[in-house]
Amino acid sequence: MAFQTGLSSSFLESHLHVTPVNVVSQNVTQNGNGIQNSASLSPVFPGYYADLAPSWPEEAHVYKIEKIIFQEKSQYQDLFVFQTATHGKVVILDGSLQLTEKDEFAYQEMLTHLPLCSIPNPKKVLLIGGGDGGILREVSRHSSVEHIDICDLDKMVIDVYKKFFPDIAVGYEDPRVNVTIGDGAAFIKSIPPGTYDAIILDAFQGMGAYATELSDKDFLESIAKALKPGGVMSTPADSVWLKNFAMEDTIALCRKIFKGSVNYAWTSVPSYPSGAIGFMLCATDGPSVDFKHPVNPLDPINFGVAKRPPMFYNSEIHTAAFCLPAFAKLAMGSKYA
Amino acid sequence: MAFQTGLSSSFLESHLHVTPVNVVSQNVTQNGNGIQNSASLSPVFPGYYADLAPSWPEEAHVYKIEKIIFQEKSQYQDLFVFQTATHGKVVILDGSLQLTEKDEFAYQEMLTHLPLCSIPNPKKVLLIGGGDGGILREVSRHSSVEHIDICDLDKMVIDVYKKFFPDIAVGYEDPRVNVTIGDGAAFIKSIPPGTYDAIILDAFQGMGAYATELSDKDFLESIAKALKPGGVMSTPADSVWLKNFAMEDTIALCRKIFKGSVNYAWTSVPSYPSGAIGFMLCATDGPSVDFKHPVNPLDPINFGVAKRPPMFYNSEIHTAAFCLPAFAKLAMGSKYA
Repeated sequence: MAFQTGLSSSFLESHLHVTPVNVVSQNVTQNGNGIQNSASLSPVFPGYYADLAPSWPEEAHVYKIEKIIFQEKSQYQDLFVFQTATHGKVVILDGSLQLTEKDEFAYQEMLTHLPLCSIPNPKKVLLIGGGDGGILREVSRHSSVEHIDICDLDKMVIDVYKKFFPDIAVGYEDPRVNVTIGDGAAFIKSIPPGTYDAIILDAFQGMGAYATELSDKDFLESIAKALKPGGVMSTPADSVWLKNFAMEDTIALCRKIFKGSVNYAWTSVPSYPSGAIGFMLCATDGPSVDFKHPVNPLDPINFGVAKRPPMFYNSEIHTAAFCLPAFAKLAMGSKYA
Repeated sequence: MAFQTGLSSSFLESHLHVTPVNVVSQNVTQNGNGIQNSASLSPVFPGYYADLAPSWPEEAHVYKIEKIIFQEKSQYQDLFVFQTATHGKVVILDGSLQLTEKDEFAYQEMLTHLPLCSIPNPKKVLLIGGGDGGILREVSRHSSVEHIDICDLDKMVIDVYKKFFPDIAVGYEDPRVNVTIGDGAAFIKSIPPGTYDAIILDAFQGMGAYATELSDKDFLESIAKALKPGGVMSTPADSVWLKNFAMEDTIALCRKIFKGSVNYAWTSVPSYPSGAIGFMLCATDGPSVDFKHPVNPLDPINFGVAKRPPMFYNSEIHTAAFCLPAFAKLAMGSKYA
């Protein structure tokens, strides 16, 4: 999980006019979206971490820091890991909440199995980002898969997860996994056409009003090209509840580029803004893909390296994720069915 | 919406050791659950309201108060209404968030249409609580209904909604509505057996670990008795994400008392703890009810007094609401199917 959801240690500070009492660290930067990210603690919550998101103003997820586990700046980003009482360990990357141990499985399982259970026989899978290993853990449940490539920018993230999150980084134990440390966009452009059955993006902002890279036509075209005919891509997308939720343009663009099925799903993940997250699923031209009706259910007794059954995903919830509330259907545009 | 979700203006105060700067009002009481509720503002958020729930610790929903609209204590409770920038008007009842205008429709529509769309021809409906009128607005979409009784304890709540929330209290304009001001439990006990096709409870804590009245066998028996054979009850229930989520005992009790179908649904409501809420649906012995598959879809052109189509509910999301994540299915117990 590595998309941008958080912001602004300075939000409460500037709006509430409360004086910082005990700031463990503060590192405010301005990213391309004009959104401020802070490296670690909100100054108005001494001893707490307050996660705030520009896409869902007026909600703070407040985590009491029981123990700081890791806090370091790599070449690329700030990584902050702490222990909480009720949400397990929490990971903050450049001021954005990446995951909590309490609910990481919901996101990881859905982002993985929505695409992989929608095609009959996935063999080659690429994961961009996802350095934590949770997506790898989930891909590992698929016995048809012969080869799993992962490309993540930051080795420090991988090392920290391997050290402190054995239940998530367990994904790296799968012998089918091949790790590349490097830039995901460059990696995708280097792939021979028609290589992968599935590409899972876990490294960028979700699709929708708050997206950046994913709105880039060239980038999406390089993903479509790297997929086999009837191959599938999954990526996080805006929650239906976000203020500017409107998927019509994104869906139209994806249809034009991928030329196969394009669909939007959503599910409940409490620690994300609005307590929900969306997923965009795209298939290339080729054997028809019906994302809503999984053709490749999980083998109930093959856990891969995960050592336990899924916590969230099942075939029922796969289909349910594509059922949208009335207002969200409207926001999908008139051509969406 | 009148169940208990919030708590404790003093939570942050006692845990964060931040001095109150500007407290509009503070009124901490102890209810039967040992949960502290505050009448209005959290002292650590001057100019803001922070909603915290005992069932989902470490999450605050922080609403900036643009304007205080109403703040008064009735014979029964404290009512606090304020305007926000992004969530419309917000209502706090005895320190618990009741609704925000941004997402009230999700809860109101699901609590109403899950039961009413599950039976072929609802004629007599009883609503206990729900003084805001939102459930009445939703019942109004059902043309088969001949008679709608509502019993709410507090006339002040009704008056305030009629004055400040015309889009919600519009439900009272339905000529089929009959209002009783009084105690809901006493009202139910006074009903001749087999009176109602549907009873909607919107006045108590949700079913589950945090319930009080609803765990009371006598109370549930009086509801079952007031229903016709094959009649249905709906009530809010714990979100699947809550720490102590375990529905096995509740389901067993409901099956014993209602003797027909008993089922659990859930949906996304951002302003509630964990961003989700559950619903318990129970049918009495009689014509078989399959809650998961609605037999009585909403008439797409009959809005009743609502003046607009539903914002959230449709037949697809009705069925999807009964699809549970793997971990929640386990918490339903082995006899749940």
